[in-house]
Order: sequence, then structure tokens, then C-alpha cells
Amino acid sequence: MRSVDATTADIVQALGGELIGSPHLKILRIASLERATQTDISFLSSPKYAHQFAASQAACVIARHADAQVAQTLGFKGACIISDDPYLYFAKLTQWWKRRLDEGGRRALIHPTAVIGQRVQLGADVRVGALCVIEDDAVIGARTVLHSRVTLGANCHVGEDCIVHSGVVIGADGFGFAPNQVTDEWVKIEQLGAVRIGNSVEIGANTCIDRGALEDTVIEDGVKLDNLIQIGHNVHIGQHTALAGCVGVAGSATIGAHCTVGGGAVVLGHLTLADRVHISAASVVTRSILQAGHYTGIFPLDDNQAWEKNAATLKQLHGLRERLKQLEKVRVST
Amino acid sequence: MRSVDATTADIVQALGGELIGSPHLKILRIASLERATQTDISFLSSPKYAHQFAASQAACVIARHADAQVAQTLGFKGACIISDDPYLYFAKLTQWWKRRLDEGGRRALIHPTAVIGQRVQLGADVRVGALCVIEDDAVIGARTVLHSRVTLGANCHVGEDCIVHSGVVIGADGFGFAPNQVTDEWVKIEQLGAVRIGNSVEIGANTCIDRGALEDTVIEDGVKLDNLIQIGHNVHIGQHTALAGCVGVAGSATIGAHCTVGGGAVVLGHLTLADRVHISAASVVTRSILQAGHYTGIFPLDDNQAWEKNAATLKQLHGLRERLKQLEKVRVST
Amino acid sequence: MRSVDATTADIVQALGGELIGSPHLKILRIASLERATQTDISFLSSPKYAHQFAASQAACVIARHADAQVAQTLGFKGACIISDDPYLYFAKLTQWWKRRLDEGGRRALIHPTAVIGQRVQLGADVRVGALCVIEDDAVIGARTVLHSRVTLGANCHVGEDCIVHSGVVIGADGFGFAPNQVTDEWVKIEQLGAVRIGNSVEIGANTCIDRGALEDTVIEDGVKLDNLIQIGHNVHIGQHTALAGCVGVAGSATIGAHCTVGGGAVVLGHLTLADRVHISAASVVTRSILQAGHYTGIFPLDDNQAWEKNAATLKQLHGLRERLKQLEKVRVST
Repeated sequence: MRSVDATTADIVQALGGELIGSPHLKILRIASLERATQTDISFLSSPKYAHQFAASQAACVIARHADAQVAQTLGFKGACIISDDPYLYFAKLTQWWKRRLDEGGRRALIHPTAVIGQRVQLGADVRVGALCVIEDDAVIGARTVLHSRVTLGANCHVGEDCIVHSGVVIGADGFGFAPNQVTDEWVKIEQLGAVRIGNSVEIGANTCIDRGALEDTVIEDGVKLDNLIQIGHNVHIGQHTALAGCVGVAGSATIGAHCTVGGGAVVLGHLTLADRVHISAASVVTRSILQAGHYTGIFPLDDNQAWEKNAATLKQLHGLRERLKQLEKVRVST
Repeated sequence: MRSVDATTADIVQALGGELIGSPHLKILRIASLERATQTDISFLSSPKYAHQFAASQAACVIARHADAQVAQTLGFKGACIISDDPYLYFAKLTQWWKRRLDEGGRRALIHPTAVIGQRVQLGADVRVGALCVIEDDAVIGARTVLHSRVTLGANCHVGEDCIVHSGVVIGADGFGFAPNQVTDEWVKIEQLGAVRIGNSVEIGANTCIDRGALEDTVIEDGVKLDNLIQIGHNVHIGQHTALAGCVGVAGSATIGAHCTVGGGAVVLGHLTLADRVHISAASVVTRSILQAGHYTGIFPLDDNQAWEKNAATLKQLHGLRERLKQLEKVRVST
Repeated sequence: MRSVDATTADIVQALGGELIGSPHLKILRIASLERATQTDISFLSSPKYAHQFAASQAACVIARHADAQVAQTLGFKGACIISDDPYLYFAKLTQWWKRRLDEGGRRALIHPTAVIGQRVQLGADVRVGALCVIEDDAVIGARTVLHSRVTLGANCHVGEDCIVHSGVVIGADGFGFAPNQVTDEWVKIEQLGAVRIGNSVEIGANTCIDRGALEDTVIEDGVKLDNLIQIGHNVHIGQHTALAGCVGVAGSATIGAHCTVGGGAVVLGHLTLADRVHISAASVVTRSILQAGHYTGIFPLDDNQAWEKNAATLKQLHGLRERLKQLEKVRVST
């Protein structure tokens, strides 16, 4: 982490919060409670780390009022910034930090190696990284950042304040083919829709969002997509939903608002997930889920030998159930 | 979807089929039966949507003869184009539509930012998008389209009429290492083969196809690969097989013709799949499959609490079977 | 495979080993025992292919002394190169072959289309392929090769003798957000760490390695990563560990040295895997593994009909166990 030259006063002035302790403490880095040294600021995200807080060498710790009191009682000598939500305060601190690091290092807004098509509309302060390709009639909202080597397809829209990481492909053709029953070949269905992405969306490296077949693929405001995610054609993802790395969402699936999908999970096509549905990592969603909640389907990890026995037995499970039923009948009849 | 100015007569003249109704109806868009308005054309892919057909506002619907008759009896007022395979007709309509949209918007065949190696052979009407890299001695057949930011490795061949989407990497090194037993390190096996891709193959965004170790990796005619797929070295995929997004095929696997593999499935190395094998999404193929058919292996999704109980029990499943056997013996002996 | 004009003597002179047979045999290709013709060299990696060895047409076979004797007794007429580890010898042969193929075809070390930031440090003989992006303050060690279209993010370090394949993204932001409880939105945690990669690391096509939140993401010496792998922020991977294609490692996971992870497996966040842990393909690691060994968790593949029955029963498994217990009680009480 690159250091920034700041004081406790600078931070509180920028981000608010009550400062308990000296405003003149020099802060060079942000660090975890365990690793923090005397020129670091840290934060207590959960009371379960309270003893680490008390023992921390940090110059300053962001914490709730009660937790700060306990730590001081237990011997913590540094300053505290009091916040009702220290983790959120920490997030905002990282943003302030990043802005200070970026000062003086401003880059060209549109990198000269980017390839920009015809009739492209770019909002104010849009940044387009090196070797991006923006195809004809694409639209990018104000303040959105495209890192290097992003492809934004023809007619696709990205909203304001979005971040698109390297290698992302928005607007490749959806996977649509009709079988030709006579020749037994696949006949391409041209993908005539586009992709529409809302505001404040972040899209991770090498993620792909396909254009729709007839209608558009839609990603609503505030959605966060991690790396290497596949979003099929005509998918619709609701506001503030977050998908972890390597998730695959098949064509025409609709995912509600405020959902989370764990890494490597798969959502099959044409399904609907209600708002606030949470899918565990690596689970496969094979039916619509109309009730908010937490859903899982993973084969539990085991040592290989035990797994082999259980997996072999699993292939007879239905038969075992029948045998159990049979025994129960005997019991009833005796 | 961008609109095209056409009439029912234009469509039938281009694509055939019997038109029942006016040849002068103005068609601006293709839409689903539900969404179609009075200037849209739609299609009935399955009789189960017959009631949507009857209620549709579409100017014209592509349908089988019997279905059209039923819809008209039930009050459908629009025109019909009669086809034995409406979904295939629809696919061809999207292709005709795309060609009309592209007219007047012809791009340079080889984008000036593409990096083309030495002794590369390009067939007639090949298109190479912005910022592609075609390495030395690569060969591309006639009419094949490489979208932007594709890498085609040295000595690799792509056939005619292929479509390769953005971010695809063809011909990176296969994953091959020999263990050095003395130093406990991995020693690279240089990948000296290449990749050979047939005609009419489509490859989705950010998909990777590795070059072979000694022999070539082979993708036969008409294969369709979705986005973010991994094809290991020396894999062989037979004609007209389709793989959905995020599939992984490990090295030296052989997949037959006319197979389908669902999204996120994994095929282990050195296995053989016969023709017309269909693997469900997210299933793991751990043994060769020599019989055509439909195969699945997914842990069923459940609410998290129920899953936890069942998953915990699953780790004792072999033991449960033994206990059941024991009980059955008692029953026999009593 | 492109041929090289060599003799058995050339090979033994370069790579060592005892040659039994003529030093003047012309070698044009490396091939498997099955496919080898009279101008090919092959190798016996395992005694189980001994009968293929005896029947091989190869000009020369790399083999252990005892295996070579058996093959000659069984009628093998070609030459042999004796090595205690024929597979390792083969790996080194492919490297020698590659160097001979590359001679005379030297390319520019830094391709003119690569975009190189400010204050970048490149070691001796570093190669940077076409259309790479090396951001400010990045460091690349001696002899490392970046193939085309790689992104190396600001402040990230890659060691010596590494190979990075096309489309790789090193140093995109980790996936870190704090929930704003009031607005129910995600607030970005700026990722202020970087990525540090050791020596002799290979990274497959379109793989992503995210930068750390505060500390760095670390990949140690000799690690081998296949294609389309996702490495989250603050992951630590120990020396000589190998991950197959499509693996996902979530944030802050620590994987030991000399581990292997099969294709498509998922390692959840904040877990620890000891040295020499081996995870089967497509397994999900949901808890730390502190003991070396082989671990698996895959739903066994079955024909779809059988799977449906077993999967349905699996959702009642805990209940079945309870019923079994009940029956056992009856047995005891009778």
C-alpha cells in the first residue's frame, strides 16, 4: 500500500466523526488491527475483535463509542474516531485515500490508443483506458471509468459513476441457435438487442455481459459484479445485487434486487429469483425462488476415501429409501 | 432492437413460406408474442403458447399451418407466415434483419489497429476487428469474423464462416508440467502442437482454446462455444456440438458430435463422450460415457438450513447403508 | 507440430542420458508411442504402456533402463535414451525443441503496440507482447514473458522467468464493498494493495489476479495457474502449487505449498489449506484443511432419470436417518 501523509485531524475534517485523542497524529497507512504500527489508522468492524483493538499499536482506530471505551479501559493508548458504522467509515476512508494518491497523477480522459466508433456518446469526465474498443452508437454516462482493454459493443449503454475493469466484454452476441431438424446443424439467431447498464455499477475483470436476442439485457443501478462472470442474453439483474467471481447466469434469468450470489454458482435460464435471495457459493439454481432467504446446494467436501464410499452409496439412495419403507411396514405389521 | 423498414411481402420474398393475409403490412421490429405491437412480427415456437398467439397484437406471426388456423378461430386478426419450423424461420429472419441493418455500415475488413504476424493467410472477406493479434503462420478461412481483441496464436487454423467474439484466446499454451522429483518443482512441457478449428464454428467472448502438447487441439465443423469456456490441450470436439458458458474441458478429452454440455459443467481429462451425449449444467463428468443420453450430477438446491442437515447426514451415508443392511438381516432372522 | 532437424546424438549431447543404439538417427518430431513413426522420438512415462513401447515404430524412445531391456526383448528395434525419469527428460526435450524452433525467429523484446506506463521497471530480456498494458510503477523481473494483451496493474510486481499468457489481468480491484445500512447500497472499499508474484510462475490465458485491499495479494515462486482462474484479493498461494482451469479462490484464502487444485474447484474466502493438500476437480472447499491429503466433494454423475430419483431422496436424507434410528430402537426394544 502506498502511503499518504495525513493527520487524524485531516481525516475527521474530510469524513466526519468524533475524534477522541490528538488531532496531530501522523497517519501514513491504513492497516488491520493486528498489523497496524504507530503511524497507521485501523478500524474495529466487529466487537469480536475487541481484544485485538486493546492490544493494537495503531495510532488511531475507528470504532463505535462503547467499543472505544472498553478498549481504553483495557489499555489502548491511541486515538479513536467514533462512528456508528466503522466498516462503512473505513470504506469511505479508502476512497478519500485513493483520491489523495491520484492527485497530481491525472491521466488523459480518453487514452489515445482506445478505438472509439462512430456516434459514441461520452458523458462528462468519462475515462476510457488504453486499448479499449467502444463500438458505434454506444453511450457512457458521466464519470464512468473503463479500465484498459474493455470492449463495449454497438448500441450498448453504461450509466453514470460505473467502474468497468480490464478485459470486460459488454455486448457480445448471446448464445442463440435454432436446430435445423433436416441438416442437424445449428442456425444462428442474430442477437438484435443490446445491453443496458444502470448507474454506480462495478464490473470485474474479464466478465462478459451478452446482448439480448430481441430485447435488451439489463443490469440495474448499484449492481456489483466480480471477475469472470458470465451474464447471458436477456438476463435482468435488480438494483444493488452482488455476484461473486465465476458466477454464470444463463439466458433470460431474472434476479431480484439486493440479492447475493456466491462464487462459482450457476443460475439456469428463464428462472426468476425474488428480491433478497442469497445463494451460497457453487450452488446451482435449477428452479425459480420466489421467497427471500438463503439457499444452498453443495456436495460437502470430505477426504477422498470417505467421499468415494458416500458418493457410491448416493447412487443407490432412492433404493435405500424403498428398503427403509419396507422395513417400516414390517415393524407396523408385527 | 434497431428497427428495419420492411413489409410482410419483403420477408416472404426473402425467406419463403406461405403468407396468409396482407403483403403490405409494415414491419418495424421482431418481438415475442406477448410484447409484439401492431408493427411487429412474431413467431410461435411451441403449441403451448397458442393462447398467447390468439391474443397477440402482432402484425404477423410465423406459425405452423394448424396453429395458425386455431389462432384465427380464436380471434387472431393479423397475418401469418406458414412454416413447418417457425423457430428456424425466425432464426433466418434474424439473419436477414442483421444483414439489412449492416447495409450501408460496412467496416474495413482488417481493422488498422489489428496486429498481424508474418506469413498469416487470410481467406476472402475475412474480417479482423480492432486490436486483434494474429500471430505468425496463422490461417483464417473465408468470411470468418474476428471481433475486437481476439488473439489467434502462431500456426493455429480457423476455418470458413466462423465467428470469434471479443477477448477469445486461441492457442495459448496447454497446461503441461512434469514434476521434478528431486527439486519438487514443476518443469514446463513446451506445447508444440497448435489448434485446428473447422468451418461454421462460433466462439464466445473470453473463451480460451489451448494449443496441443504434441498433436493439435481440434474443434470440428459447426461447433458452438459460449462465453468463458476453457478447452484444454489436445481436446477433440465433434461436429455440431454445443457447450454453454463457463464449461471446462480438461486436456485430451474427446467429446462426440451433436452433444450438448450445460453451463458450468466440467469434463475431466482423457475421457471420451460418445455422440449425442447431453450433460446437464454444472455436472461433473468423471468417467467416459459411451452411450448417448442425458446425464446429470448436481446437488439439489434447498433452503440453507435443510441443506445443512442433509449435507451433514450425507457424510454418514455409507454408514447408514450398513445399518440398514443390519436391520434387514434382523428382519430375515426373526 | 513443427519439425526440427536433429539426430539422436544432438539430443543426448544437449540433455544427457545414455544412448543405446545409433547416434545418427534422424529425428523430426516428438510423438506418443502409438503415433510415432520412424523419424520420431517418443517416451515411456509409465511401465503400463510397456507393450506399446515394444510395438512402437519410433526411431528412439526415452525410457528407464529396465523398461528398455524388456522392450528390446519383446522386439523393439529402435534406439533408447536411458533416463531415471523419462517424463522429466521429455519435458526438457520439449524445451530444447522450442528453443531450436525459436532460433532465427527472434522478435522485438517490447512490442511497439504495448502501452507502458511511467516509472515501469523491466529486467533484462523481458518480453512484452502486442497490445499489453503495463501501468505505472509496475515491475517485471528478468526473462519474464508477457504474451499479447496482458494487463499488469499499477505497482504490481512479477518476478523472474515467469510466463503470462494472453488476456491475463493482474491487479484489477478486489471485490470489496461495505453495506451502507441506511441507503441499502454497497459502498466501494478502494483496493490500496497490489499483487506480488514470485519467480518461475506461469499464468494461463484470461486468468485474473486481484490486487489486495490493504496488504498485497501474493503468489509465490514456481506456482502454475491454468486458464480462466480467479484469484481474489489478499489470497496467498505457496510455492509450487498448481491450480487447473476455471478454479476460483475467494478473498483472503491461504493455500499452502505443493498443493494441487482440480479444474473448476472453488475455495471459499478466509480459509487456510496446509501444504500438500490436493483438491479434486469441481469440489468446493468450505472449511480450512490443516492436514495434507486428497479431498473431494462432487455429486456423482448418473443418467438423468436415476439422478432425479436420488436427488429428490437426498432432500429427505436427514429424515431418513431419523427413521432408521427409530427402527433401530424398535429392534433393541424387541
